Amino acid sequence: MRINGIHYRSIALSADGWSVQIIDQRKLPWSLVIVELTSAAMAFQAIRDMWTRGAPLIGATAAYGLCLALREDCSDQSLELNYQMLLAARPTAVNLRWALQRVRQSALPHHGQPRVEAAYACAAAICDEDVNNNRAIGEHGLKLIRPFASRSGVVNILTHCNAGALATVDYGTALAPIYLAHQAGIPVHVWVDETRPRNQGALLTAFELAQQGVPHTVIADNAGGLLMQQGKVQLCLVGADRVTRNGDVCNKIGTYLKALAARDNQVPFYVALPYSTFDSSHDSGAEIVIEERASDEVTWMHGQASGGDLLAVKLTESQAANPAFDVTPARLISGYITERGLVKDIVADSLPAGANG
Amino acid sequence: MRINGIHYRSIALSADGWSVQIIDQRKLPWSLVIVELTSAAMAFQAIRDMWTRGAPLIGATAAYGLCLALREDCSDQSLELNYQMLLAARPTAVNLRWALQRVRQSALPHHGQPRVEAAYACAAAICDEDVNNNRAIGEHGLKLIRPFASRSGVVNILTHCNAGALATVDYGTALAPIYLAHQAGIPVHVWVDETRPRNQGALLTAFELAQQGVPHTVIADNAGGLLMQQGKVQLCLVGADRVTRNGDVCNKIGTYLKALAARDNQVPFYVALPYSTFDSSHDSGAEIVIEERASDEVTWMHGQASGGDLLAVKLTESQAANPAFDVTPARLISGYITERGLVKDIVADSLPAGANG
Repeated sequence: MRINGIHYRSIALSADGWSVQIIDQRKLPWSLVIVELTSAAMAFQAIRDMWTRGAPLIGATAAYGLCLALREDCSDQSLELNYQMLLAARPTAVNLRWALQRVRQSALPHHGQPRVEAAYACAAAICDEDVNNNRAIGEHGLKLIRPFASRSGVVNILTHCNAGALATVDYGTALAPIYLAHQAGIPVHVWVDETRPRNQGALLTAFELAQQGVPHTVIADNAGGLLMQQGKVQLCLVGADRVTRNGDVCNKIGTYLKALAARDNQVPFYVALPYSTFDSSHDSGAEIVIEERASDEVTWMHGQASGGDLLAVKLTESQAANPAFDVTPARLISGYITERGLVKDIVADSLPAGANG
Repeated sequence: MRINGIHYRSIALSADGWSVQIIDQRKLPWSLVIVELTSAAMAFQAIRDMWTRGAPLIGATAAYGLCLALREDCSDQSLELNYQMLLAARPTAVNLRWALQRVRQSALPHHGQPRVEAAYACAAAICDEDVNNNRAIGEHGLKLIRPFASRSGVVNILTHCNAGALATVDYGTALAPIYLAHQAGIPVHVWVDETRPRNQGALLTAFELAQQGVPHTVIADNAGGLLMQQGKVQLCLVGADRVTRNGDVCNKIGTYLKALAARDNQVPFYVALPYSTFDSSHDSGAEIVIEERASDEVTWMHGQASGGDLLAVKLTESQAANPAFDVTPARLISGYITERGLVKDIVADSLPAGANG
């Protein structure tokens, strides 16, 4: 993605060839702070405390985290210990387990420096594949968007949370088709759900879209239903943190409400995801344990004060609950946009063998 | 309602017998500021800028606003001019028109000081009736809540925005049954939708409930769907700004999304309202023009900084849209709790003649 005209990936190897640079997303959109991860513990913290977030990017960050651990100590014990630690950083994104398993598989047959090199090579491959997959998701999604342009002029697309370049290594999942449509000259406009409580829509998606020059409007999460009633949404496009064997989609809290509104107003509701987000170990979304995050994410709001300082303000002294995800039943989903094309129905057995374990 | 142990109405005549005291709701929950309205222009500003809000309370405030105008100038011209001005303060709450019409009707036959006195008597009656109506709504709603207590122990009720004492003269509409249930020893717990963009849930409903000692938990507006999926909501109770002849409910933006989730999870969804909120002049919600408010209500968040200062912080430089209401179709509503009892289906012709015009 471009930020201030310069191309960035959300995660990249540093010039030293071993440490890892990420964008500290807690500082966006107010300042672009690049953080250098130099240990597995830092990678763990970056994921848990959401310096970096988004299912594919969590996977890539964890992959490099395991590399950093092996660089310090490449024993079997270190490999296993750090694998388990990083796996515990966030519970929901299935890409986390998938990426860690891939790095472990590549590293296991080797010992010493070759083990470290195998791990780094695997992490780099995960990142490059993510970019290619997202570009492919973009191209398949573009085919969905194009017909709307001829029917309705501007294509208004509603998205929730951030499933953009900042949630992946580059391009994004749900935003990839939008970027390609914009580049192809199709007039798109994005309704950006603010995405309380952490405001990834208002803070990250709006920033990303603004930086790529894509027209967009931020809305409260409450507004999407009305906009669909009014015919102001042609298409909903969201990402996913985990898709189970039956096609249920675990994604940022609030996704389910938009899918219900889309169904009630005959608005197509698509989920964009790489195959690494499919979770063949769960039959349905009902089995997923929903991550409960700290209540102060609800009761405190972070933003920029008029003087330019970054501040938090409190909304209430009352207690709050903060479930981070919900499950959108497969019946509400029009289709899944993957790197291999559009999938109408998820059939678990059609998944590539060993894609997940 | 009790605030710090003292009983308040949200609007009351001052000791001088003519000026009107309201609670400046922009300052809650951080401080209790009583503002004295001394002119129709002040009443207009209090409604437009939401020092005071909630359909019934908007009506009561406008009623006294017209009294204040007549006290200064009780001519026919002043009556008409100020009627029109106050009517324009907020477009959605039908109680505004209803209350203004009632005061105008009472004042018209009189001239001079008797006109002023008739207007004040009418405004006082509107306020007293509101309190009595809400108490009756509470009693009818209590009959709905009670059976859940025997089935599920704690009755978890989800509410959106603030339809409490602070939205009315006292008791509230949607919160009245909850207060009576709590007083009756029924174990209730309220899920309080934060209610972006103005956070009336987190700021006002949570405050009100805390002051009356009712257990409650603030949640992001996005969370209600998941809670219903998880069986953690027995009942939804909301207020209304306007209910059309076919039973469509215009209420705070986001209400529709909760009604969809309630339907999808077989959770009863009730709307509490006085008959003054019925609008017999509109056949359906599709005819209602939705108020679009300033975009900085979305892009700026107001709260208390850790030092205690009240501050606003900005979320984004992007543009925002801010529709204030949506329409929940009658088909999604389990019933309407009114001062005359529970109404399953709104039939326009069953409305009292002249309730609205």
